[in-house]
Amino acid sequence: MPFFTSTLLRPQTLFQSQPQSKTLISLLLPLLYRCPISSSTSPMASSSSSEATLREVLAEKQAAVEAQAEAVRTLKARPGTPQSEIDSAVESLKGLKLEVAAVAKRLQAEGSANGEGGTGGLSKDAFRQTVVNTLERRLFFIPSFKIYRGVAGLYDYGPPGCAVKSNVLAFWRQHFVLEENMLEVDCPCVTPEVVLKASGHVDKFTDLMVKDEKTGTCYRADHLLKDYCKEKLEKDLTLAPAKVAELNHVIAVLDDLSAEELGAKLKEYGITAPDTKNPLSDPYPFNLMFQTSIGPTGLSTGYMRPETAQGIFVNFKDLYYYNGNKLPFAAAQIGQAFRNEISPRQGLLRVREFTLAEIEHFVDPDDKSHPKFHDVAKLEFLMFPREDQLTGKSARKIVLGEAVSKGTINNETLGYFIGRVFLFLTHLGINKERLRFRQHLPNEMAHYAADCWDAEIESSFGWIECVGIADRSAYDLRAHTDKSGVPLVAHEKFSEPREVEKLVITPSKKDLGLAFKGSQKMVVEALEAMPEKEALELKATLESKGEAEFLVCTLGKTVTITKNMVSISMEKKKEHQRVFTPSVIEPSFGIGRIIYCLYEHSFYTRPSKSEGEQLNVFRFPPIVAPIKCTVFPLVKNDQFDEVARNIARALTKAGISNIIDITGTSIGKRYARTDEIGVPFAVTVDSVATVTIRERDSKEQIRVAVDEVASVVKEVTEGQSTWADVMWRYPTHAASSDE
Amino acid sequence: MPFFTSTLLRPQTLFQSQPQSKTLISLLLPLLYRCPISSSTSPMASSSSSEATLREVLAEKQAAVEAQAEAVRTLKARPGTPQSEIDSAVESLKGLKLEVAAVAKRLQAEGSANGEGGTGGLSKDAFRQTVVNTLERRLFFIPSFKIYRGVAGLYDYGPPGCAVKSNVLAFWRQHFVLEENMLEVDCPCVTPEVVLKASGHVDKFTDLMVKDEKTGTCYRADHLLKDYCKEKLEKDLTLAPAKVAELNHVIAVLDDLSAEELGAKLKEYGITAPDTKNPLSDPYPFNLMFQTSIGPTGLSTGYMRPETAQGIFVNFKDLYYYNGNKLPFAAAQIGQAFRNEISPRQGLLRVREFTLAEIEHFVDPDDKSHPKFHDVAKLEFLMFPREDQLTGKSARKIVLGEAVSKGTINNETLGYFIGRVFLFLTHLGINKERLRFRQHLPNEMAHYAADCWDAEIESSFGWIECVGIADRSAYDLRAHTDKSGVPLVAHEKFSEPREVEKLVITPSKKDLGLAFKGSQKMVVEALEAMPEKEALELKATLESKGEAEFLVCTLGKTVTITKNMVSISMEKKKEHQRVFTPSVIEPSFGIGRIIYCLYEHSFYTRPSKSEGEQLNVFRFPPIVAPIKCTVFPLVKNDQFDEVARNIARALTKAGISNIIDITGTSIGKRYARTDEIGVPFAVTVDSVATVTIRERDSKEQIRVAVDEVASVVKEVTEGQSTWADVMWRYPTHAASSDE
Repeated sequence: MPFFTSTLLRPQTLFQSQPQSKTLISLLLPLLYRCPISSSTSPMASSSSSEATLREVLAEKQAAVEAQAEAVRTLKARPGTPQSEIDSAVESLKGLKLEVAAVAKRLQAEGSANGEGGTGGLSKDAFRQTVVNTLERRLFFIPSFKIYRGVAGLYDYGPPGCAVKSNVLAFWRQHFVLEENMLEVDCPCVTPEVVLKASGHVDKFTDLMVKDEKTGTCYRADHLLKDYCKEKLEKDLTLAPAKVAELNHVIAVLDDLSAEELGAKLKEYGITAPDTKNPLSDPYPFNLMFQTSIGPTGLSTGYMRPETAQGIFVNFKDLYYYNGNKLPFAAAQIGQAFRNEISPRQGLLRVREFTLAEIEHFVDPDDKSHPKFHDVAKLEFLMFPREDQLTGKSARKIVLGEAVSKGTINNETLGYFIGRVFLFLTHLGINKERLRFRQHLPNEMAHYAADCWDAEIESSFGWIECVGIADRSAYDLRAHTDKSGVPLVAHEKFSEPREVEKLVITPSKKDLGLAFKGSQKMVVEALEAMPEKEALELKATLESKGEAEFLVCTLGKTVTITKNMVSISMEKKKEHQRVFTPSVIEPSFGIGRIIYCLYEHSFYTRPSKSEGEQLNVFRFPPIVAPIKCTVFPLVKNDQFDEVARNIARALTKAGISNIIDITGTSIGKRYARTDEIGVPFAVTVDSVATVTIRERDSKEQIRVAVDEVASVVKEVTEGQSTWADVMWRYPTHAASSDE
Repeated sequence: MPFFTSTLLRPQTLFQSQPQSKTLISLLLPLLYRCPISSSTSPMASSSSSEATLREVLAEKQAAVEAQAEAVRTLKARPGTPQSEIDSAVESLKGLKLEVAAVAKRLQAEGSANGEGGTGGLSKDAFRQTVVNTLERRLFFIPSFKIYRGVAGLYDYGPPGCAVKSNVLAFWRQHFVLEENMLEVDCPCVTPEVVLKASGHVDKFTDLMVKDEKTGTCYRADHLLKDYCKEKLEKDLTLAPAKVAELNHVIAVLDDLSAEELGAKLKEYGITAPDTKNPLSDPYPFNLMFQTSIGPTGLSTGYMRPETAQGIFVNFKDLYYYNGNKLPFAAAQIGQAFRNEISPRQGLLRVREFTLAEIEHFVDPDDKSHPKFHDVAKLEFLMFPREDQLTGKSARKIVLGEAVSKGTINNETLGYFIGRVFLFLTHLGINKERLRFRQHLPNEMAHYAADCWDAEIESSFGWIECVGIADRSAYDLRAHTDKSGVPLVAHEKFSEPREVEKLVITPSKKDLGLAFKGSQKMVVEALEAMPEKEALELKATLESKGEAEFLVCTLGKTVTITKNMVSISMEKKKEHQRVFTPSVIEPSFGIGRIIYCLYEHSFYTRPSKSEGEQLNVFRFPPIVAPIKCTVFPLVKNDQFDEVARNIARALTKAGISNIIDITGTSIGKRYARTDEIGVPFAVTVDSVATVTIRERDSKEQIRVAVDEVASVVKEVTEGQSTWADVMWRYPTHAASSDE
């Protein structure tokens, strides 16, 4: 879903920021954030019953689609049927298909909320609570400005969280930027209005909001409607089956409702403000960007960027030049992005300021092959293609090479990045059985997008979109070309000039403007985009009849074109080069979400020998671990302390982050304390000549000479050796009875 | 100067953002940024003459100070002189001393603008132009949103700039965070009003602005006044000596002028709007924070943080707990900060959004020793203590240990960080002869600050403050304690309870409020801060006479205290612990400024053999270099290309950033291209078995077997070996005639 991507740009819901809140399942951390408990954390029994209902609704809708498709075929076959009648039937069919897609999406979200993957036998809520309590107690995160009672949707990374984040970003740079020679840039957060006007954010980056008419408290309209429907479904056991189906349908199509439709539903169901029961205003769009003013005059509007991508697009010309005027190349950016959510109520997953890492890979639209695709072609992992979602199936393992060769994934470059994202996430420690790549359904995708996949990670909240990987075609560069007047294009020089017969379509903007007013632009674009065959047919019709019917997909209807509105001809030309707008393939990473899921996948508990309670452990791989090694003198003793300090110094010198704990606490407690922040190795000083190194998860220990410690820890931390390798090389040591 | 620090918090000019614009000398990059050329880039001749004039002014002022000091002594010695008369004479003395300080500061700035250090024989302007042209052509930076004609004060880091920045930050983390086990945190940029109200930014983080009364164009009042004075001094050769002295004096005391004083001067000199000659409004304060609104109601004001420090202060309690409730410890943060400059006209050095790296080291105010001070005590480098500035001397080399032991630097911890900052900057490639640590003059420093030093780097613009290192005492934690009601304090538990006789000073806020109204708080603070001896004297006076004169430094005068206003007693108490507010020592790094100075210090030109023109080189050390190694096949040839690709792959695998250039251009041109972005090593493939590695600055080459290349480059890049080491181990290779 386009929370982290600039993917969605549909005529009606351009940059709608949360069209998939359903699939995310409200993430609530009630103890921490003082939010009311949402109905989405309902007991599983009711989820399952709602799942059964959804399956019924899906079957019903699919039957309706088939019936309508049959009707369209009949109409088309019947000679003399007026075009308008066919159009209207096609429209209905499209609408029904969208509904099927929406129900399928909801079904899939419901399904994911069941099962108990990875929670070690705990209920999901209890598991989450344990993880989050540990995270907050050990300062992985801190609600921002806590001493002033905080601000919803703002969180700090405390010391271990900050270290994890900087490790994840360092690995991202290594895995993507360094490996692919990407051009990394760093643009400001403060962005002038014109840029975000061009991108569409100023006009369309909105959520629908309602206000309590008396107190002025604001709510997201879709949240209120969804909460109402879910509560009804769960609590009202007397509901008639038709009503159940209706409410499920409303939830399923929630994202596609206009302000008027949403308002009508709120009225129909008599929904009032949750806290006061006061009447609500009509829904109206609220722009999610933080607005500010640049300079002292107050006349120059600016916004805090809602994504980092635009900074790259506006620099395309310079970056293309920097790359020797050659395609393909990728630019990348890591930075803060801002979204002024109406009422953030999903804890760490839905925040008002977050770190994005985005890649814009620019490629010739006629050649989306990738020279390194073979490096990832054999990977096999969970994918969830569109068709499987629409027919109610589950995600399944598919070999990446096959997904591309069969056309499930649109092209090699998109496939290459999907593969690289899979490697990135699993290398960080994301469980590959709980990671899937889900293709966008037609109604989730922008009209210009060629294909779009989300890397979704399963957490206690269901499947969370953490990375969006979209082929956005030429949309963004064209938008900025139009607005700025600076052509953001690429050139392919021919070795010798080519004589080409070229289709020239010249729409008369004036005549089209008079005829179609506000829709003129879409008609012009549709005319210009005609393939040769269609254009020549249109030319013939216009010449013979003076006018012709013409389907404009973006308007969703056919219009009548007259001869004066467009000139179409084939012309011979000598061309020295081809000038074109590159396509953009955009992998966009929500770093905070990846880290939260990583916490859940890395967390487990094990019994404490001394007291029978459970000890918490994060099994972070060394690359992620906030601290790589701890150093403990076994007993308090000046000599041991001195050895410990020397080892710590040697580790620091080798670039290994470490902490030294010379408190008198028992060694078991000290191990437990560092297991809980995921430190992979612990050095215990029990003599002045040799010491032990303990591995966190196996609790195995080896005995190593003092002056070798830093190099051994460096080896296993940086991946030159595995723990098994060094276990082989050094004598093992029996764990102390204290553990 | 406190552009990067939260250092300055004086009663009158709290958080004044640019009190030292003088020392920075306007940084103008006219070709790039379309700004008018400032008089500060004037020819050196006039600088020198202005320097001579300044020396005269300084001598004059110093004479006045001595005369006034003598007058005060006389008054005090004369029995029966009314206290008010003494006070007023002391006030005058203080004012004169401030003027001396200001002139000294200006003299020092003027002095630094002369000489031609590091410009390789070019004039400073020409040198700067060459550097900046190279930087922009090679995309080290890009004016942000260039295709939309940009926004003043916003710049992007392009690919090599972004790599340099991320290298600098990685080294900062290693050198400070890892080495000192600092607690790094990461807080949001969006900050609620209450936090910045407590810190003083909402009320006092302002510059004085004037508006063109007809067009509304805004100007910084001090800039207009300064420009006027400088232009007069430079262009009007008929000026009487008295007038010259007056104008120089105005420039010298510019930072200390109130809105009224500034306004009066603008009127007196008939200064009008520079572009239109229209009349100007009176000066009024403009807050430099970008304001926004958090949430949808529009009722909750927020700001984009002007520094990162506040995010650390508000988390003190959690961080102290995380550190096991022990002092000292340091927290650190790297992140964006924002200042909505009125009219940024200093290019890359004065921007509206920038990256800060800040450290807050919390320490017991009674023990500011540092256990690792001996590691840096022997360092000797350029320092510029307050006394030397006030007496017109130059910066000189001082051994750090001596500066601390003699009390020039206030304490060991402050000294330790000064030493560490010196090591950090010089390791990055800053020339140690062009780096000095300048102590703040009394009028630059906050009243609560114990001591403050700036690391200033000499560039073509003069000495630029790049790091501020301040002992801020307990100010910040107290401010947030007061505002939030959450005590941000530390505890020292005694091993056994101590019976202490304790001075208890209890001001009667009510009575003091009635007597002193708005000044009540400062009187209360001054009473509470009295040392024991003074308090007991006051007690005695109050008991005998019923009232006493009492000096309140922060008010700059004495007030009359009556018996009812304060109770003073010595009480016996059993104490189990000591509760106190820690002091904060804050090194604050302006990353963008450090990088700009690094560019200048690293840049040089050398003749091109082929064409007689000059080639540009950045002599970045490997740790800073944006790309560590380039790989070139000597001639275009499939075999060589293949070898080159394999070497590039091996380098990438070893984590060495590299680019491969298989264009057919001459090898000399390809070397020149990478020298210009500071790549330290170039591999040339001239056979399939062995290749050459060339070092950028010496242009020496060694011959190395293909499969050893990656490890050799890694060694010299990561510092395990020097180039001299590997020159010794491998056969040298004569440079191709092409170079």
